[in-house]
Amino acid sequence: MSNKTAVNVAVVGATGAVGQKMIETLENRDFPINELKLLSSSRSAGSKVTFKNEEYTVEEAQPESFENIDIALFSAGGGVSKKLAPEAVKRGALVIDNTSAYRMDPEVPLVVPEVNEADIKENKGIIANPNCSTIQMVAALQPIRNRYGLKRVLVSTYQAVSGAGNEAVDEMNEQSKAMLNGEEYDASILPVKGDKKHFPIAFNALPQIDMFEDDGYTFEEKKMINETKKIMHMDTLPVSATCVRLPFAVSHAESVYVEIDDETVTAQDFKEVIGAGEGVTLQDNPSEQEYPTPLSAAGKKDVFVGRIRKDPDVENGFHLWVVSDNLLKGAAWNSVQIAERVVANNWL
Amino acid sequence: MSNKTAVNVAVVGATGAVGQKMIETLENRDFPINELKLLSSSRSAGSKVTFKNEEYTVEEAQPESFENIDIALFSAGGGVSKKLAPEAVKRGALVIDNTSAYRMDPEVPLVVPEVNEADIKENKGIIANPNCSTIQMVAALQPIRNRYGLKRVLVSTYQAVSGAGNEAVDEMNEQSKAMLNGEEYDASILPVKGDKKHFPIAFNALPQIDMFEDDGYTFEEKKMINETKKIMHMDTLPVSATCVRLPFAVSHAESVYVEIDDETVTAQDFKEVIGAGEGVTLQDNPSEQEYPTPLSAAGKKDVFVGRIRKDPDVENGFHLWVVSDNLLKGAAWNSVQIAERVVANNWL
Repeated sequence: MSNKTAVNVAVVGATGAVGQKMIETLENRDFPINELKLLSSSRSAGSKVTFKNEEYTVEEAQPESFENIDIALFSAGGGVSKKLAPEAVKRGALVIDNTSAYRMDPEVPLVVPEVNEADIKENKGIIANPNCSTIQMVAALQPIRNRYGLKRVLVSTYQAVSGAGNEAVDEMNEQSKAMLNGEEYDASILPVKGDKKHFPIAFNALPQIDMFEDDGYTFEEKKMINETKKIMHMDTLPVSATCVRLPFAVSHAESVYVEIDDETVTAQDFKEVIGAGEGVTLQDNPSEQEYPTPLSAAGKKDVFVGRIRKDPDVENGFHLWVVSDNLLKGAAWNSVQIAERVVANNWL
Repeated sequence: MSNKTAVNVAVVGATGAVGQKMIETLENRDFPINELKLLSSSRSAGSKVTFKNEEYTVEEAQPESFENIDIALFSAGGGVSKKLAPEAVKRGALVIDNTSAYRMDPEVPLVVPEVNEADIKENKGIIANPNCSTIQMVAALQPIRNRYGLKRVLVSTYQAVSGAGNEAVDEMNEQSKAMLNGEEYDASILPVKGDKKHFPIAFNALPQIDMFEDDGYTFEEKKMINETKKIMHMDTLPVSATCVRLPFAVSHAESVYVEIDDETVTAQDFKEVIGAGEGVTLQDNPSEQEYPTPLSAAGKKDVFVGRIRKDPDVENGFHLWVVSDNLLKGAAWNSVQIAERVVANNWL
């Protein structure tokens, strides 16, 4: 495609938590769509979805579904992406994949537009959308890196249940009601649907997101570590993460510690630099109790940063609190944003 | 007192969240009580409390209330301790104070028995019980310090609502019910009752515990920083903290990063050392999804540690996840434990 003003878009996983947000975001952004195709597993095929006052029927995703598609947004699980993304590419579509299937593939750019937009051009048909918790962190780190250099990153996350899908949110709500009424409850989804044991998330905290690896880190923690280095093109940046699931539906929060190259920077300098970052909104005024929370960030596209403080002992160390809607900047909005940059730069 | 086998005990704040747990703990531990006096503000005076099948009437705390008292456990707010602890001391009682009133007073020992039991002897009538989030962290750090030395501590907390009292838990529950039913809700207690603004805690996370200080840290964060140094007698240990309130009733969790002196230690070594710590239970078996959570730790006296991992980049850096019941080890049990050591060592 070149110089087309409107493109043919497919959304794969149209009935899921992220797919629904992708469709809403395409509508809210008035994305230049010629034809829209909504795809899902056979189980959800036949569902009806309204887009710009028109009703669409969700179809089962098949290799042939991607004929004439320009941009395919995938968010139906890694297995579906592994199977169908190459079929979409074969038929000429550009795939923007929100699963972890291709993120660490050296042939696939992993993109947060505020950080590495130029990588989009290097694609061979697939662009990967990073993990939700990684996206908001690198968006907050980028202005810091640009101004001061980055020496080290440590993060402890406070992650929303919707990151595990709509059914995990339903489970949290059911457990919450039961606990509040003093009734029995059970757990069958969190921390990881496919893992051996399940624990209640309501009125609790689960220090496991995704499966454990042999070294005791979870795959979610590894995603934050490895994806951060890839997106920022900083292969040797020390990064570590502890990822925790918490009982709220939307928005991930992160307690981030960063060390920079410069020892003379004040917290005030740091705030100004972060506040000027693309896609970042500073909410940091302790005397007025201004700081972001999961509820305050929900439904918004930006990454919100507050609680910026200099470490008491380490002159080049700073603490910050980073919050963003995990379904928007962490998933749907970042994917649509990549698609917008593709169209705006005529990179299809 | 010397060689008495049973002592006269007063509990100040007997109707509060911690006071109730103090009474329960005295009963469960079969603490050697001769006479028990339950005290409170005038507002709660007259309440009935059962202790060992006997009904007690809560009386208004007055200076004279402490006549003949050997040990007075205070947990009725800093103002009450400031006013009445000296009156109790004047009348010969040993005060174990669970508020922040005297913690940083150089004349007052700040005690976690597993860490600095010997400091109890240095008291001049008042012993301070540390902040809940500090107690569980230093209990987990002590075996590490003893074996490997400590170079640095960074912590991000996940703190339960009961730390702000019973009425904060009621507020969380009411907000939760309203949100689940799609009804209106309001907030009037958290993050800090006496601060200007209040935000909902249900299905949310509030990065403010206690009031802000001028440097952007909260008083809760300062407590963790300063109390850790005092309890461990490590005045120059670098410590920093980010404290966050979360929607669960009981048990604080903490993501702790520690640097030790030794670069050759493995995660397995580290687990063994922590597991052998006094008052600490290791719950760390990722392949079986074993790790502590707020729900699993609630109602138990120990400090539970899991998710122990070596930092991917820093040879002497380790990450751990520390969970304990904030009302027990974080408050009532630590206070009663101090009282037990006083009696056992004949230090009254």
